[in-house]
Amino acid sequence: MKQLEILDTTLRDGAQSEGISFSVSDKLAIVKVLDEFGVTFIEAGNPVSNPKDMEFFDKAADLQLKNARLCAFGSTRRKNTAVEEDENVRSLLSANTPAVSVFGKTWDLHVTEVLRISLEENLAMVSDTVGYLTKNGKEVVFDAEHFFDGYINNPEYALKVLKAAHKAGAAVLCLCDTNGGTGPLEVYTITKEVCRVFEGARVGIHCHNDTGCAVANTILSVQAGAVHVQGTFTGIGERCGNANLSAVIPTLQLKNGYECVNGRLEKLTNAALKISEISNLSLQSNLPYVGASAFAHKGGMHIDGVNKISKSFEHVEPNTVGNKRRFLLSEVAGKNALLAKLEGIAPGIAQQKEQISLILNLLKDKEHEGYQFEAADASFELLVKRALGLFTPHFSLDMYRTSGEYPSPDGETNASAMLKIQVNGETETTAAMGNGPVHALDTALRKALTVFYPQLAQVHLIDYKVRVLEAKQATGATVRVLIESADGSRKWTTVGVSTDIIAASWEALVDSIEYALMRQN
Amino acid sequence: MKQLEILDTTLRDGAQSEGISFSVSDKLAIVKVLDEFGVTFIEAGNPVSNPKDMEFFDKAADLQLKNARLCAFGSTRRKNTAVEEDENVRSLLSANTPAVSVFGKTWDLHVTEVLRISLEENLAMVSDTVGYLTKNGKEVVFDAEHFFDGYINNPEYALKVLKAAHKAGAAVLCLCDTNGGTGPLEVYTITKEVCRVFEGARVGIHCHNDTGCAVANTILSVQAGAVHVQGTFTGIGERCGNANLSAVIPTLQLKNGYECVNGRLEKLTNAALKISEISNLSLQSNLPYVGASAFAHKGGMHIDGVNKISKSFEHVEPNTVGNKRRFLLSEVAGKNALLAKLEGIAPGIAQQKEQISLILNLLKDKEHEGYQFEAADASFELLVKRALGLFTPHFSLDMYRTSGEYPSPDGETNASAMLKIQVNGETETTAAMGNGPVHALDTALRKALTVFYPQLAQVHLIDYKVRVLEAKQATGATVRVLIESADGSRKWTTVGVSTDIIAASWEALVDSIEYALMRQN
Repeated sequence: MKQLEILDTTLRDGAQSEGISFSVSDKLAIVKVLDEFGVTFIEAGNPVSNPKDMEFFDKAADLQLKNARLCAFGSTRRKNTAVEEDENVRSLLSANTPAVSVFGKTWDLHVTEVLRISLEENLAMVSDTVGYLTKNGKEVVFDAEHFFDGYINNPEYALKVLKAAHKAGAAVLCLCDTNGGTGPLEVYTITKEVCRVFEGARVGIHCHNDTGCAVANTILSVQAGAVHVQGTFTGIGERCGNANLSAVIPTLQLKNGYECVNGRLEKLTNAALKISEISNLSLQSNLPYVGASAFAHKGGMHIDGVNKISKSFEHVEPNTVGNKRRFLLSEVAGKNALLAKLEGIAPGIAQQKEQISLILNLLKDKEHEGYQFEAADASFELLVKRALGLFTPHFSLDMYRTSGEYPSPDGETNASAMLKIQVNGETETTAAMGNGPVHALDTALRKALTVFYPQLAQVHLIDYKVRVLEAKQATGATVRVLIESADGSRKWTTVGVSTDIIAASWEALVDSIEYALMRQN
Repeated sequence: MKQLEILDTTLRDGAQSEGISFSVSDKLAIVKVLDEFGVTFIEAGNPVSNPKDMEFFDKAADLQLKNARLCAFGSTRRKNTAVEEDENVRSLLSANTPAVSVFGKTWDLHVTEVLRISLEENLAMVSDTVGYLTKNGKEVVFDAEHFFDGYINNPEYALKVLKAAHKAGAAVLCLCDTNGGTGPLEVYTITKEVCRVFEGARVGIHCHNDTGCAVANTILSVQAGAVHVQGTFTGIGERCGNANLSAVIPTLQLKNGYECVNGRLEKLTNAALKISEISNLSLQSNLPYVGASAFAHKGGMHIDGVNKISKSFEHVEPNTVGNKRRFLLSEVAGKNALLAKLEGIAPGIAQQKEQISLILNLLKDKEHEGYQFEAADASFELLVKRALGLFTPHFSLDMYRTSGEYPSPDGETNASAMLKIQVNGETETTAAMGNGPVHALDTALRKALTVFYPQLAQVHLIDYKVRVLEAKQATGATVRVLIESADGSRKWTTVGVSTDIIAASWEALVDSIEYALMRQN
């Protein structure tokens, strides 16, 4: 297999994403994940522009990396400055990394209109900086900023800049689509031409996603001869993000015959999840290869096809990238998917035709009322068990009353709830205040139930979603409430539907707690 | 400019997304947005597999579409069935749409291993179905399912299926990358070959995003000769989604010389926002062209460059697609746009620096609390007028009390509200029952106000949306309520934010009514 270098820039270009701010310990944690997964380079920051990055490089020196080489990032020397006296360049040395990436201008427009210097001075800046860092023992990745825009506007000058870097000792000539606007065919033909001109050099590719083509452009560039690939692990980055490595790597490895991460591809999904977690982002469920929905099938015919032969509706096997196949329930899903799920809840049911048609009809009615079970597994399980007589409730409600008031009766909260429940013939009446009526009711219910089931103290709600169905009826409309709960070791989701938001929330709340108690028994 | 057909399948393939469930009124609302934006075809559902879709097609018959043609979707006839007796095919006719899309198998593996029929019977199924629908006056889009996998495995058979559809009268031969695993170069060369074989035919492309290449593959297919493009407006769809039309359309229009939507490209961002909103999804901020971050600059050098010359760090001008440039480091972002808006509300304010900074600070505080005024123009206008002392309220609230009860006290409703308001020193106390506390409060408020302002009888709420902000606080979380109102000639939207859903709804309700009264005076 052909070898490829992967440079991950989550910690540098990814940090330019809107809403992203890495702490030093976040960065160290991400370096460990990337190193274990086995990328070649970790571009970890710009020691000049950010004091946190300098602190990071100090601490990173102690890491014993197994696979990756750390890389500091910076610009070429300033205009009209001797390179050895340039602070930027000196701080790149003091970051003490084996590799350094240096960006320089290759688009003449940027040289004359943004930097406002002569084309010759720009060449000298590139040559001096790359040469100085190389002489100081660094493996230099030259990031040819705006290379594609530059090449389209003035190919001769763009190539001259690459030549200056190459001659000065750059280990990699990386072609950057900085604005992310270059089309796939252009990336392919321009990379091909560069690889022809610099035969034998390590050519790299760095794409942004402003037209949604960053992944494809990266793959095309490799097919045209690039051997060094830059991107961020989950595609984060300024504006629309960078090339998503968790999509690029498996495609190149599984479909194009390149070796990128020495056989650790089945750790891909886990690495993406960890990096998102550390970044305080949820991993988008529709991400290629690693998303929770990447191998989730909803249509009945698709489910039937995958059951017969997996490649009928899956382009790769989910386990090759450490992900899982899932079948979703919905009005468009077929009977087979449902049967597989029912067997998991009530083993042996597949043989009982009457029971199955009972449940199918119940489901159809419920979905027509606005219930949605594909995101509410716990309510689905309870629905099935109730219908089959396999469920004994742990409590029942006699009555509740909620009250919302303006002005606030106690100057703090503006809602209260009281309720009376029964557990095994014993009743408990209690009340609570809350931010709103649902909050008050939730608090009161927990208070009452904890008397009988102290283990409920571990159960807490982690998400609460409200969706208005048939919105045209405005405040009289039907609402669907989804509640996600957790008890430290498990998460589950429940659903409630009503024209009354309190009644819908109550239903989802009851399911949440019944499910917890059923599982704990 | 070369013309392209756009087929949007948000309502059919998009509905296969995990977590998506469109109501009939959601579907009708999305059809309107797509038609106004100007796509060619709206593929709106499968009348066989889903009873809701049949109801939708009944209602959609009354829509007066200006630009788009509705399209029902279904499969070829079942094996060994006469086409005119096939229920699926007949329901496609009864959907009563000018266009119909029919999918058929082109991958021999699917024919023999999944359908388990002979290769010949599959050809007859395609030919019979396309022929029958064409004879019945339908414009038939033939979706060649798994075309690329099929062509790679057995090019001769894949082309035979296309020929059967073509000969039977298919208006479009659409090449589908159903599993989303085909690489960009393969899509390009295979499309080119199909366009050569079927010279003069309308060849289409339908890509899935399982390798992150759906957008690029679509563009490459058009460059190879396809003239009909399928996708979903914001890229939603089964597994990793479909080709994102909000990225494909501007690239083809601005960079490749194709005319797709007759000059309405500057409505792109707004259309994407509306469709996401109706789908109850937040539009991903990093989406190409339409995302909130698509033209957001964080790095200082980038901001400096864009200020000197916009194309230095922007591949297209944001206003060409109806989006906005934002500088994330700078608090003066969008100040000019805001000034223009303020001038419309309070003419002459541009000269009053103190007033402007008062409003800027107020806005910043409000947005921090969770208000969002982009979708709530009426509340924004009231906020500004209140801050400038240009607004006299038409009523004030002394108190309200809502009550939610289980079991229902009257056997019908389970909530009631009472309130006391003042209008010009006169008080009115009233009460109402409702489906839920918000509905009861809304009804009571209207009842009380109509005594003083009979013209309010014309004002009604047409939409009510609830979004949970900090979800992690579960039932104690902050909610944002958006209310859309109309009075026959105008529509306006108002917003309220609180940890109490009743208080948030009340705030949006008050703004809705104050705005109506202000406009009527």
